[in-house]
Amino acid sequence: MLQNNLLLRAAKGEHVERAPVWVMRQAGRILPEYRAIREKLSGFKELVTTPELVCEVTLQPVDILGVDAAIIFSDILVIPEAMGLDYEMIEKKGPWFPKTIQTAADIDLLQTDGVTERLDYVKKGITITKAELNGRVPLIGFAGAPWTIFSYMIEGSGSKTFSKAKKMLYTQPELSHRLLSKITAATIQYLHMQIEAGADIVQIFDSWAGILDQDLYAQFGIPYLQRISQAIKQVPTIVFAKGAYFSMEDLATLDCDVLGLDWATSIEDFKAVVKNDKTLQGNLDPCVLYADESVIKKKTAEMMKRFEGQRHIVNLGHGVYPDTDWRKVKYFVDLIKENNF
Amino acid sequence: MLQNNLLLRAAKGEHVERAPVWVMRQAGRILPEYRAIREKLSGFKELVTTPELVCEVTLQPVDILGVDAAIIFSDILVIPEAMGLDYEMIEKKGPWFPKTIQTAADIDLLQTDGVTERLDYVKKGITITKAELNGRVPLIGFAGAPWTIFSYMIEGSGSKTFSKAKKMLYTQPELSHRLLSKITAATIQYLHMQIEAGADIVQIFDSWAGILDQDLYAQFGIPYLQRISQAIKQVPTIVFAKGAYFSMEDLATLDCDVLGLDWATSIEDFKAVVKNDKTLQGNLDPCVLYADESVIKKKTAEMMKRFEGQRHIVNLGHGVYPDTDWRKVKYFVDLIKENNF
Repeated sequence: MLQNNLLLRAAKGEHVERAPVWVMRQAGRILPEYRAIREKLSGFKELVTTPELVCEVTLQPVDILGVDAAIIFSDILVIPEAMGLDYEMIEKKGPWFPKTIQTAADIDLLQTDGVTERLDYVKKGITITKAELNGRVPLIGFAGAPWTIFSYMIEGSGSKTFSKAKKMLYTQPELSHRLLSKITAATIQYLHMQIEAGADIVQIFDSWAGILDQDLYAQFGIPYLQRISQAIKQVPTIVFAKGAYFSMEDLATLDCDVLGLDWATSIEDFKAVVKNDKTLQGNLDPCVLYADESVIKKKTAEMMKRFEGQRHIVNLGHGVYPDTDWRKVKYFVDLIKENNF
Repeated sequence: MLQNNLLLRAAKGEHVERAPVWVMRQAGRILPEYRAIREKLSGFKELVTTPELVCEVTLQPVDILGVDAAIIFSDILVIPEAMGLDYEMIEKKGPWFPKTIQTAADIDLLQTDGVTERLDYVKKGITITKAELNGRVPLIGFAGAPWTIFSYMIEGSGSKTFSKAKKMLYTQPELSHRLLSKITAATIQYLHMQIEAGADIVQIFDSWAGILDQDLYAQFGIPYLQRISQAIKQVPTIVFAKGAYFSMEDLATLDCDVLGLDWATSIEDFKAVVKNDKTLQGNLDPCVLYADESVIKKKTAEMMKRFEGQRHIVNLGHGVYPDTDWRKVKYFVDLIKENNF
């Protein structure tokens, strides 16, 4: 039994004494304790694939920041890797795939069988973390959305424009759907595995939603998010489609429980569209946490006021930036926990 | 006298026989004739600072693509350079500033006197280009918006998050306003110089507007765009605030003639807000030009239908991507000129 299940109740729209709070990228570089572990390792991937270390860094923000949830430390790119596309994480640059997807034959070579076996280290990480958490707070599992994973598979890295990935959508729509379907199938298996291992709720990150538009997202984004949402019945689901304000109405039709909002999105517009049928998660600008406490308090109060009357999980509107002072993050978490805004 | 003044009439909301069309980044890598010139030079900056070459590449898209306007070939970063911050253009990486702005003292060192003298090469480029154009189509001048120039000055390069620049807004608002004011003063002088040299209309590019939110943009973006709009009375003005859908209402209050729309922005929402008091410019997704002609035609027709009844200048929703086939761009331009959609 969970001692603090605020997040799960808020996700399902049940009564909560106060809004739960967690922070995207709460486990990571903002914490000196994380950096101490990371420095001893050969690289980011050693951390991701070592269950005991995954457990340790996943628990750090629960202990240090006092957040209402843990999120398993991992990366959305473990899915392309498990399907057959290795990636490297290049320091200060981000992910890089030596091999990318260009043709139908490349897609045929991607494997959906055996994905969960190859991601057994995530299962072990979740199992150990659940035991260590000992019911203190819920554990969030996660995966990348099919469109975002598709983008990395085509581009081979981040991009300002993702023009190669979008080119594929416009020039080879059927091939694009085939690849998206394959990613979706693997992702559903992967999320089921996470839930069986103990994840209490799952979040789908569509980091690159915002470079599409309503029409493209309706064709190549939403249907796959819906397939995933409908396949996850055991636990609540959160969909965070960053920058996809243009698809508010379409996102509201998903069979998920929570929608994430980035900082630039109008809370009022989203409230009007979801009509309290879903919980909204977000959306303080992570840059606010660079400011002094008085500014953080003022901006937090403004945000809470705007969410008033809405099912709400407090978070940032994007992952916390690595150069943020962790004490500012704790200050923000405390404001929410102490209803001090 | 201009033989084709469709762009100017459309900008001012006068009657036009058909919507004018031009393409952001029409002068550049998409044209083999541009690449031939570029290959002979030491680098991008040699091209930008050589008036005869500026003239040549500015005219190329008028001759080859048949667009309804030329836009002077230059870069928004000539302003920080003229104020005292040199930049380098690194191949395949983008701009890089060896020195950035961090303190009040750094801001004090920036010069606003003598900016137009140091940008005399732009004036010469415009003068020669106007003579060569010989009234065929209008010549567009341009500058970066103060917020976008501010971002480069603080960050020293492009960025995914522009968190350093935003940190400055949250932590040092007064210093930020001081820097923005200084950039604005230099920009107004620079645009006046371009107009005196012959620019028939000017566009302000706020490339990084979309990483702010309504509140920040209302404080640090809109007031400076307004200062510029009000200072330019001789020719029509276009403001393109990419990604700033959240500030639609605020943008509509600007004393400019035209607002640019990126591809993801809802045309319907913008139409409802500007109520035909302004011309809208845009907004085909540049990635559509990767597709075959039937898709380009269909997407162009959809866009034109959505703009119906609105003062409109046809363009893409972002600069054309360098790997686009120039024949596709010409096909798009021809569709508009022949009313074939």
